[in-house]
Amino acid sequence: MISDLSPQTRRDLLSMIGRAGGGLAMYQAMTALGHAAETQFSGPPALSGARAGASVLVLGAGLAGMLAAYELTKAGYKVQVLEYQDRPGGRNYSVRGGDKIVEVGGATQNVAYQPGNYLNPGPWRIPHHHRTLLHYCKAFGVELEPFIQLNHNAMVHRKDAFGGKPQRYKELAVDFTGHVSELLGKSLNAGALDSAVSKEDKEKLIAALREWGALDGDLKFTSDLHVSSRRGYDRAPGGGVNGAPTPSKINSLSDVLSSHVWTQMSFYFNYVMQTTMFQPKGGMDMIGKGFYKQIAKLVRLNTKVTAIKQDDKGVAATWTDTVTGKTGVATADYMVCTLPATILAQLDIQVSDAKKAAIKAIPYSGQVKIGLEMKSRFWEEKYSIYGGHSFTDQAIGLISYPNFDFFKDKPAVLLGAFANGAGGYMLAGMTPEKRIEAALAQGSVFHPEEYRREFMNGASVAWSRMPWILGCCGMWTEESRATHYQNLVSMDGRIVLAGEHASYYGCWMEGALLSSLDAITRLHQRALAA
Amino acid sequence: MISDLSPQTRRDLLSMIGRAGGGLAMYQAMTALGHAAETQFSGPPALSGARAGASVLVLGAGLAGMLAAYELTKAGYKVQVLEYQDRPGGRNYSVRGGDKIVEVGGATQNVAYQPGNYLNPGPWRIPHHHRTLLHYCKAFGVELEPFIQLNHNAMVHRKDAFGGKPQRYKELAVDFTGHVSELLGKSLNAGALDSAVSKEDKEKLIAALREWGALDGDLKFTSDLHVSSRRGYDRAPGGGVNGAPTPSKINSLSDVLSSHVWTQMSFYFNYVMQTTMFQPKGGMDMIGKGFYKQIAKLVRLNTKVTAIKQDDKGVAATWTDTVTGKTGVATADYMVCTLPATILAQLDIQVSDAKKAAIKAIPYSGQVKIGLEMKSRFWEEKYSIYGGHSFTDQAIGLISYPNFDFFKDKPAVLLGAFANGAGGYMLAGMTPEKRIEAALAQGSVFHPEEYRREFMNGASVAWSRMPWILGCCGMWTEESRATHYQNLVSMDGRIVLAGEHASYYGCWMEGALLSSLDAITRLHQRALAA
Repeated sequence: MISDLSPQTRRDLLSMIGRAGGGLAMYQAMTALGHAAETQFSGPPALSGARAGASVLVLGAGLAGMLAAYELTKAGYKVQVLEYQDRPGGRNYSVRGGDKIVEVGGATQNVAYQPGNYLNPGPWRIPHHHRTLLHYCKAFGVELEPFIQLNHNAMVHRKDAFGGKPQRYKELAVDFTGHVSELLGKSLNAGALDSAVSKEDKEKLIAALREWGALDGDLKFTSDLHVSSRRGYDRAPGGGVNGAPTPSKINSLSDVLSSHVWTQMSFYFNYVMQTTMFQPKGGMDMIGKGFYKQIAKLVRLNTKVTAIKQDDKGVAATWTDTVTGKTGVATADYMVCTLPATILAQLDIQVSDAKKAAIKAIPYSGQVKIGLEMKSRFWEEKYSIYGGHSFTDQAIGLISYPNFDFFKDKPAVLLGAFANGAGGYMLAGMTPEKRIEAALAQGSVFHPEEYRREFMNGASVAWSRMPWILGCCGMWTEESRATHYQNLVSMDGRIVLAGEHASYYGCWMEGALLSSLDAITRLHQRALAA
Repeated sequence: MISDLSPQTRRDLLSMIGRAGGGLAMYQAMTALGHAAETQFSGPPALSGARAGASVLVLGAGLAGMLAAYELTKAGYKVQVLEYQDRPGGRNYSVRGGDKIVEVGGATQNVAYQPGNYLNPGPWRIPHHHRTLLHYCKAFGVELEPFIQLNHNAMVHRKDAFGGKPQRYKELAVDFTGHVSELLGKSLNAGALDSAVSKEDKEKLIAALREWGALDGDLKFTSDLHVSSRRGYDRAPGGGVNGAPTPSKINSLSDVLSSHVWTQMSFYFNYVMQTTMFQPKGGMDMIGKGFYKQIAKLVRLNTKVTAIKQDDKGVAATWTDTVTGKTGVATADYMVCTLPATILAQLDIQVSDAKKAAIKAIPYSGQVKIGLEMKSRFWEEKYSIYGGHSFTDQAIGLISYPNFDFFKDKPAVLLGAFANGAGGYMLAGMTPEKRIEAALAQGSVFHPEEYRREFMNGASVAWSRMPWILGCCGMWTEESRATHYQNLVSMDGRIVLAGEHASYYGCWMEGALLSSLDAITRLHQRALAA
């Protein structure tokens, strides 16, 4: 076995494989050696030997497009990037005071946040295993700080549970675990699982349930101080003569079940949601700006592409300058097209019918985010909530507490909605003003005394109404992926597509980057073979 | 009910109660109003009307002593503080390059950490509900940053599990949850719990287990992509043509049980260990320094107290200057004594026999912390571990990854041991050099290729060998508390004791502060009544 090799021999072997076979071979070898099963990233692509003067036209200056431009330029290609908007970054951006948000239909918001405050309307959190993104953030000097994902002290609300009163996550989760432990302990002791669990495992499992569920000597989950040392106290421990704590009262199984807290418990165990997570210091757009610094001179902003052609000599994109009205045609040997499928589906593009069908087949989600600027961080001092999310089954989905400037006495932007599915469509269908009102009404369940009193102003991004994308991100179904995915990502003549929609990490920046690396690696191989 | 009152009426009522009854009354009223059950802190104490010229002698310039000095001075008392060490802060400190650590027995360490690196040998993390500490940190300008407590991607090691190979926490925890869910689902479906669970709850609980345990359609926990979306993949999702993920293989119930992972799962749900946690930017000693700034002119450092007397006129402490050899007697009307019980037990102190017995009865723990400076943060780039702890059943207990300077290319101090109980005694019994060697040998199980290769230098603090305290902190048993606690904290003539040992939050800074607030509140009442 490879894993029996000495460290030095393994390193030599890996290095040899890396030189010989490039990324995928390296990845497979690393996995065999017991490393890196958590990512398909194995370092920047080894593209070398581009033919002198060979050129690539990149459409879109989001992360996928900018990464393609950066790596292809490094490899020796002549690269030009066309970008529709007046800024780079695409969905990687932050809404700040002074910004104007114009929606399909004309609704316009003038954002009034204080300097330093922002809403990250698209990506907002980075898993520790998204190594491609972490690699380039480091390479491009983008500073990251922790994003508080799991907060035991945040709240869970359901309209039909606890009379509509939000509960602390820690209380519900501890109670759920306790009841589950008590019930399983009871089954095991009654012999109900003797055919499924060996005698030795049964004893160990009962000991495990006692500890994990904070059960008492009789394997019961009760309102004692031991349980309170998990879920919190009625009167917390203190100092001096009155320091003794008093226990809190557990919820019944029925009440806990009404809360659906296992949905949050499961959420926090999603591979992409697990700690440690990060966010860029100063706003998500710091990443787009970090990428842009590397390749700014290659990018033409305010440039709307209206048609994409190719023949056996090269590619051409017809464009219009959205500011001056000037038109032109950009040409190159090859093209990396990172336009979202929603936009691409409306363009005159010369690719196979199968690829056209694939482009049309990707469902896009319609998330809505709303950032509410509050006069103070009342959730911290009064509720002891520092970062993390309070969840609700109302349309807003959750509210999320800012992860920087903790303890500061100044206005802060609270995420007042991250609406998905039906909630997203409902909020997107409202005017921006009504969205804010809905966010205030719904979010007030968590902080009834403060929510409206502390509110200063708000801004929302309804992705389905953003004219430059008309949706948030690609949400492949199993069926659509089986039929169309390979047709979407395949090299079509001189054109290859890239972006989060061309990956198995849809809706994540990591997917956009991995897709881009794969696309340019294949483009390069194709160019060398030409 | 009070909670039926309008918000304005409630605020008025609270304010009235606050003015009339002080802290405890305010606390009890807030609890009745549905607030603040998580802390006994209800704001700085309202001490007012001290008799002109009344004086208090405070022994010890740790957090309890400095807080007493700060609040009593504010209230109008004339305060003097005597401190044995050449620095304030007590156990609230950080070990840095250039420091010298001298143990009982003479063993001396000269700490060689790079500038900016440190070990927090005592307190190192602050729960979000320790509101007294958070209040004074803010008041004194001490900046806090997140302390990453729960890291799903860190590891769990037991010598007798998985052939001694550490496993990722996320894999073990997901597998434990999955097996528990499958087994309980099986019991429920077999009707084994029909007498304990109503039909309606049973259906809801089965649905809950399916989601929470990531079970398949047959309520089985299996190695599929759904489970991998929790525990991680064999091949993670990627981009482009080879983007499809492959599932990882789950562990059997027996293997999961061998890991004892529920101990960590329970740990993360401890009320004092739950997210969000904090640490001071720049080292734990920033808190001690923040307190000291407020009262520095009241403190006499290098001052060893040798006897404590009192009579109906006042208190007196005999002292020796440990640098100059000068001796003296400090006198005052009252005394707040925050010396650790381990030291106090050896002093000539004029208090009741019951209090003397109480002082002698508090067991002190003997933790050992070891900080290993490593050339690089290899655990980040190679293992994707950013902060948090990897646990082991070896003497070191755990290793813990630093929570600042993430992604930086420079040496970092890893906590190489946080040893309790038998492990602590074993490591304390070694020379400092042998402790480092033990930490390297044991910690290598997590990072075998890098641990010794990247090691630069190390330092350890064995609390039982620190001459100024001879232990880490007070660990009351239920029995010792029942017999002695009230005797310890009671006002004895003109003397009151304070510190974490005089609280129900032993071993926490919050306990020291709450104890101090309670002690000075009672001292003040006593002084007013005199």
